[in-house]
Amino acid sequence: MLVALLPSVAAAQSAVRYTPKFEDLKYVYATLPPVATLQPGGTLETNTFDAFGNAIKKPGDTMALVKGDNPLTGPFAIAGAEPGDTLVVKILELSVDSTRGVGAFAPGFGALNATNYTPMLHAPLPERIWFYDIDNRANTATFHALDSNHTVTIPMQPFLGCIGVAPAGGEARSSVVPAEFGGNMDAPEARPGYTLYLPVNVAGALLFLGDGHAAQGDGEVAGTGIEVPLRVRLQVDLIKGKKIAWPRFENESALFAVGAYRPLDDALRIAFTELVSWIHETYGLSSLDTYELLSKVAKIHLTEMVDPNYVVIASIEKRFLPTR
Amino acid sequence: MLVALLPSVAAAQSAVRYTPKFEDLKYVYATLPPVATLQPGGTLETNTFDAFGNAIKKPGDTMALVKGDNPLTGPFAIAGAEPGDTLVVKILELSVDSTRGVGAFAPGFGALNATNYTPMLHAPLPERIWFYDIDNRANTATFHALDSNHTVTIPMQPFLGCIGVAPAGGEARSSVVPAEFGGNMDAPEARPGYTLYLPVNVAGALLFLGDGHAAQGDGEVAGTGIEVPLRVRLQVDLIKGKKIAWPRFENESALFAVGAYRPLDDALRIAFTELVSWIHETYGLSSLDTYELLSKVAKIHLTEMVDPNYVVIASIEKRFLPTR
Amino acid sequence: MLVALLPSVAAAQSAVRYTPKFEDLKYVYATLPPVATLQPGGTLETNTFDAFGNAIKKPGDTMALVKGDNPLTGPFAIAGAEPGDTLVVKILELSVDSTRGVGAFAPGFGALNATNYTPMLHAPLPERIWFYDIDNRANTATFHALDSNHTVTIPMQPFLGCIGVAPAGGEARSSVVPAEFGGNMDAPEARPGYTLYLPVNVAGALLFLGDGHAAQGDGEVAGTGIEVPLRVRLQVDLIKGKKIAWPRFENESALFAVGAYRPLDDALRIAFTELVSWIHETYGLSSLDTYELLSKVAKIHLTEMVDPNYVVIASIEKRFLPTR
Amino acid sequence: MLVALLPSVAAAQSAVRYTPKFEDLKYVYATLPPVATLQPGGTLETNTFDAFGNAIKKPGDTMALVKGDNPLTGPFAIAGAEPGDTLVVKILELSVDSTRGVGAFAPGFGALNATNYTPMLHAPLPERIWFYDIDNRANTATFHALDSNHTVTIPMQPFLGCIGVAPAGGEARSSVVPAEFGGNMDAPEARPGYTLYLPVNVAGALLFLGDGHAAQGDGEVAGTGIEVPLRVRLQVDLIKGKKIAWPRFENESALFAVGAYRPLDDALRIAFTELVSWIHETYGLSSLDTYELLSKVAKIHLTEMVDPNYVVIASIEKRFLPTR
Repeated sequence: MLVALLPSVAAAQSAVRYTPKFEDLKYVYATLPPVATLQPGGTLETNTFDAFGNAIKKPGDTMALVKGDNPLTGPFAIAGAEPGDTLVVKILELSVDSTRGVGAFAPGFGALNATNYTPMLHAPLPERIWFYDIDNRANTATFHALDSNHTVTIPMQPFLGCIGVAPAGGEARSSVVPAEFGGNMDAPEARPGYTLYLPVNVAGALLFLGDGHAAQGDGEVAGTGIEVPLRVRLQVDLIKGKKIAWPRFENESALFAVGAYRPLDDALRIAFTELVSWIHETYGLSSLDTYELLSKVAKIHLTEMVDPNYVVIASIEKRFLPTR
Repeated sequence: MLVALLPSVAAAQSAVRYTPKFEDLKYVYATLPPVATLQPGGTLETNTFDAFGNAIKKPGDTMALVKGDNPLTGPFAIAGAEPGDTLVVKILELSVDSTRGVGAFAPGFGALNATNYTPMLHAPLPERIWFYDIDNRANTATFHALDSNHTVTIPMQPFLGCIGVAPAGGEARSSVVPAEFGGNMDAPEARPGYTLYLPVNVAGALLFLGDGHAAQGDGEVAGTGIEVPLRVRLQVDLIKGKKIAWPRFENESALFAVGAYRPLDDALRIAFTELVSWIHETYGLSSLDTYELLSKVAKIHLTEMVDPNYVVIASIEKRFLPTR
Repeated sequence: MLVALLPSVAAAQSAVRYTPKFEDLKYVYATLPPVATLQPGGTLETNTFDAFGNAIKKPGDTMALVKGDNPLTGPFAIAGAEPGDTLVVKILELSVDSTRGVGAFAPGFGALNATNYTPMLHAPLPERIWFYDIDNRANTATFHALDSNHTVTIPMQPFLGCIGVAPAGGEARSSVVPAEFGGNMDAPEARPGYTLYLPVNVAGALLFLGDGHAAQGDGEVAGTGIEVPLRVRLQVDLIKGKKIAWPRFENESALFAVGAYRPLDDALRIAFTELVSWIHETYGLSSLDTYELLSKVAKIHLTEMVDPNYVVIASIEKRFLPTR
Repeated sequence: MLVALLPSVAAAQSAVRYTPKFEDLKYVYATLPPVATLQPGGTLETNTFDAFGNAIKKPGDTMALVKGDNPLTGPFAIAGAEPGDTLVVKILELSVDSTRGVGAFAPGFGALNATNYTPMLHAPLPERIWFYDIDNRANTATFHALDSNHTVTIPMQPFLGCIGVAPAGGEARSSVVPAEFGGNMDAPEARPGYTLYLPVNVAGALLFLGDGHAAQGDGEVAGTGIEVPLRVRLQVDLIKGKKIAWPRFENESALFAVGAYRPLDDALRIAFTELVSWIHETYGLSSLDTYELLSKVAKIHLTEMVDPNYVVIASIEKRFLPTR
């Protein structure tokens, strides 16, 4: 299903450039008026604010400065998109739009502490903020420990923590939620070299972007990656009349199916049943043969266990599949 | 119940070779009489039967032939091991001891179907068995689809699905269980190049081995890897007076902490709190600095979601840590 | 998006009667134009359609006739309600508005079968519909087995499966979801004799009602209660400046705190931490004394494990609490 | 399946009285030498120590005095019991064998705080011990708050928190574990008026008893009930050749099926699929009719969410079932 996108000539004719102001940002995935319309095959150049709305700038700043989590750029309408289509998003370029990244531990958010949805009687852990020096030439971010003098550089691999469309059924969901419509998947797969497929639930699809991460560990356990604003270039397309239930990624060598729910057990079941269906329908292997093959060669990427839903991505390398 | 260790004459030898017969195999991790005693620093050469006790041999054989799951070779006593020590197991060599591997789907076992512990009202999926051709020279196993003519080779990376010691508190646990004592972790990290640390709970530690896999996908979703008998060479050692709560792996470049429980959410919490403690105690980073750093660079390996407990392994590359 | 409340003329009346047509029904809890405005202290008389929009009428009807699940009557604005207030809903009267109730098993919905959020590879269980004879005088509903001739009467205790307000943060949630805003809690406590407290998230609060059940088992395991249209009479009020995080019920003798999330483990933690806070703040017991006391005398009502979030209600009888 | 026990004449002939000393107590459910043998139809009079081995006696005593949790009286062999039979235990009388009950909050144990299996980075809550005055004539236990002067009496309803047999498959399980073999179910149903059915896994069945509670809230959320030693009188019997998978309770009016696992979602699935099977096999209702009926009239008792496995009991009143 790796879509052959339109030739660059066509793309040149339909390139959109959009620069949001802070007051243009959104905090829900919802059916909202689009800020611009993209043509299938066309490109978008835009930028995203960081997860804190760029409010945390220097030592001493606190989470109290943050107006809303994961402010979103968009939405962008895709001309001709109708419910039942699949939106194709090819991420062409991402670059960090800052010399500083932020990591924050905020009470109530994280996998190893009490949260709003796993509440306990413990006193909360203290709020902490770490600043990372971004070196765009070396492609590194530098961690500085707060309680000792340990410093270490981390290779950057920027991605969009949030990328999603308006939900189905008239729902509007917070920018911190990942679900069927994509959203806050915190998936490093949302980077150049990968194509993302999202279900189109409303006319125009309505694409939202945000929450750039310069780097992130699996599970995003303390609740943040290296949070940065991003410059983004991507290309969109449509697969008309092709309906998918959950987000999917694809690159040259592999298929990736996303499950986003709680507990992780169910997120995993969603990701794998989606991958079984994808393989069965596209490559003709029976469901049980696919199940067996996945048990021998699948990979699991547990991207986060800190958002209102948790995200598991199940994948298989194409070399293990029949030729189509 | 203290183990009667072998006489001190045995202590003189530092290499033990042991070949089990079928009737020597065990089906629980428990305080049982050892089949041999290993010296700290000494080596063991032995072999393991496959997860089916080598009973599934040819097309037409069924799971009804299987006498017990995951039969275990051992236990091996480690001379001088006492509760509160840590057992060190360095896996030196593993090779597949067969020209055939087996993958089986048995009703009630798997991540995407009803099981004993996630029971449903659906009729069970049908039992199926796949045979894999093992090519030890090419280091591959070949999958043959049952319902179509798809055939593909899978690179082998043999590991011990089961490796564990007698549990604490007088417990005896089935060979299909992974828990604090190791056991059926289905962790590909149990292979050459890695060192495994296990808590010593009883005198002699009592090491059990089994359930070789020629290859396995993350999650082992259909319930089996490519099940094979193995030839095993390993070295044991003790860290006296060093107590750990859960199994740990280490290789040249990284630290790996194991969590084994249900649901996956809790297995992940165990693995990560163990990794935080390990780093804090050994490298001196504060817990919150470690939490933050892991949120940026940790890796998660979800090895299986099909056994009575599920297994998550959290890891960090040593290059991100302070020098000790 | 602030709600345009009805003109102040309406404010003079303290009893509102509203009869929805099918096309007036809603399918999301959201900030929508109110159908009427209620005064604090005022009453509402209205009616609700059943969970199937009254579409299942006779043997042979199928789920394909259903236009949308849990259609909602409303929303009703409460004059003067502002975010940070608590909405008080006292349910005065409920009566079944039909001589037939419906129970349906629809594939993908239920606690003991594969669902959208616990998907599996099994073929779905078959769709089935049961009709219940409602005897309003005897206050019973009669079950007829489909596969044998067993017939039995069940005492009725009608309640509103859905009762909730517009969510916070600009979200809009499906009528099948229970969460912080109430919604599809499937809580038999939503019946005469109980008072419900809901957080006010938007101006006017915006109360929605629906999904009447004539009776329901704990867990609502097959996915439905005895689904019926209801006639409803209730009274609303406001507690100004009192902010709560999750729904609460109260009756003469007990306090009830609601948790609605997944897995059940977390729903239970939400319910109990809410109950601890409620008791601590209102009755002055310390958190640890409250924790201990609840461990000795609390009751748990697990209302459903079939909706997108599961619901646990933790309660304590007031006789065990200090006098206020 | 309410078994007609043998007439009292027979029982008189086979009454066993056994009084354990502290050093006779056991800490695992396992195949151990029996302390006495009971005849089918015969009675047992014995007593149990409290969950702390009666070590917490007065203010100032701490958990450090406790030698082992949930010490067990037994095991008692049942003459003629063979694997594949069902053990019947009718609890005839329980009385509190003390004037003081104990409630303890020990760090790492409870539903609303970090534990060994839901570990977090928070500092543990402080250890606390509450003493309850037992009034056996009034049948009450009196709670005294530690941080304020609130005092309240709680009606007593003594039950055995631990009642179980030797596990299957050669396993030995800690006295704090509930599972297929019964064990630490913390089920108030283990009291006079109820009959308990347990699977027989080894010759003689080997019955263990302990962990008396004078009263307990649903969920046992802080980790203890009102812990007391008990005097116990019960009657045992066998159903030869009748195999059950999980514990069941029965009283005059209802059937109760036990599920004990993690997360609660799976414990609930176990309890309800067991109840569906029980009804289907014994009363002839089809599985789908039973599923539907349970969705309308079942009750759920969530007994504890604090042990290594959590316990859900699903029940139905017999008046809703066909006559047998």
